[in-house]
Amino acid sequence: MMEIPIVRDVLEESNLLGWENREVFDRSGVFVINLMSSPGSGKTALLMKTIPVLQTLGINCAVIEGDVTSSIDSEKLKQLNIQIVQANTEPFGGACHIGPHLVKAALEFLDLSSIQILFIENIGNLVCPAEFYLGEDCKIALLSITEGEDKPLKYPLMFRECKVCIISKTDLLPHLDFDMNLLQSNIRLINSQMKIIFSSAKTGEGIAAWVDWIMSQKAAAANSR
Amino acid sequence: MMEIPIVRDVLEESNLLGWENREVFDRSGVFVINLMSSPGSGKTALLMKTIPVLQTLGINCAVIEGDVTSSIDSEKLKQLNIQIVQANTEPFGGACHIGPHLVKAALEFLDLSSIQILFIENIGNLVCPAEFYLGEDCKIALLSITEGEDKPLKYPLMFRECKVCIISKTDLLPHLDFDMNLLQSNIRLINSQMKIIFSSAKTGEGIAAWVDWIMSQKAAAANSR
Repeated sequence: MMEIPIVRDVLEESNLLGWENREVFDRSGVFVINLMSSPGSGKTALLMKTIPVLQTLGINCAVIEGDVTSSIDSEKLKQLNIQIVQANTEPFGGACHIGPHLVKAALEFLDLSSIQILFIENIGNLVCPAEFYLGEDCKIALLSITEGEDKPLKYPLMFRECKVCIISKTDLLPHLDFDMNLLQSNIRLINSQMKIIFSSAKTGEGIAAWVDWIMSQKAAAANSR
Repeated sequence: MMEIPIVRDVLEESNLLGWENREVFDRSGVFVINLMSSPGSGKTALLMKTIPVLQTLGINCAVIEGDVTSSIDSEKLKQLNIQIVQANTEPFGGACHIGPHLVKAALEFLDLSSIQILFIENIGNLVCPAEFYLGEDCKIALLSITEGEDKPLKYPLMFRECKVCIISKTDLLPHLDFDMNLLQSNIRLINSQMKIIFSSAKTGEGIAAWVDWIMSQKAAAANSR
């Protein structure tokens, strides 16, 4: 039989590394969430509200904190008394996303046997982070309402890859010319299956629904192993 | 004499293309502004307010509108009756920044002889766009106050490369826990020479100062040619 030539995906090697991470997570039974958004949409603020609720449910969490540079967000998370690894790419001209190799390197510093959920807070960027498989169970997008209703249409890969869109900073709604219905229909145009959670780290709106979703997905993942 | 080996900058070829664009701009006497920010910081809204003021001063403008995909922003700009070229990278897995080759391609569709200022609205991203020389006279960063005070420290290249930081959405200040002094000192830590303009597309704050700055820089550039 004739052999059919295969042109390899340039991301293939990277994806293989993601699968290596996946094996590590599977062995330790850790549920992994890759959290992505524009800069300043509130990823860290969401974690600051989410992790204490998970802790009250007896769930131990850890965070891989991705940034081009600085450890500002890690410093904020310290007060949660969790394991944190700061994963920096490079201050000037470094990668604009967390790759699976960086997650692999970060895992060297984490004791996975003592946690049940690992959050990977990606670098603030709506484009490239969506392209990489890190070994996570699910990708989650945050979008703050201050960013406008059109973002799903302008950054479709992010909204196609993610299972949930957390619409953040809802407390600012009275002060913006913002059409929540238009945002939702734009999300649906790109990903009709996407779960939408309205949230505000300031008022606490949506945190319970978000934690419920995490717990149900974690249980489903455990059952499918 | 021994020849010393030179390791070439991977961006060098790209930069050369930027200089080719520069020659085109120099020949036509067009002043070029590369406008960069996170998604949803208000680049298009700023242009919608800025260009009409420039028009009243007898300045004809054009826009190269950069997006991964869609022409949503171009459609908004149409009402200004200016030349617009939509420069898209690719919807799924496309580049997260405008490169000089894309500007070069866009120039095929522009009549530079009838304009004095060209705005390049880059793709919403605080990381990679700052790495590329497109041939512009200056790079400008927008940062909305909803993104937080820490962004200059987390995305330093953007704030080092840009001459001006336009702090946008100042109308939202009463509704945020935001420390404007902290933001300014964070900017100064990265770029002590950076000009800071406080602006709101909603109230019009800062638009006159921004136009003044453009006009002075445009005159200075013309004198140095």
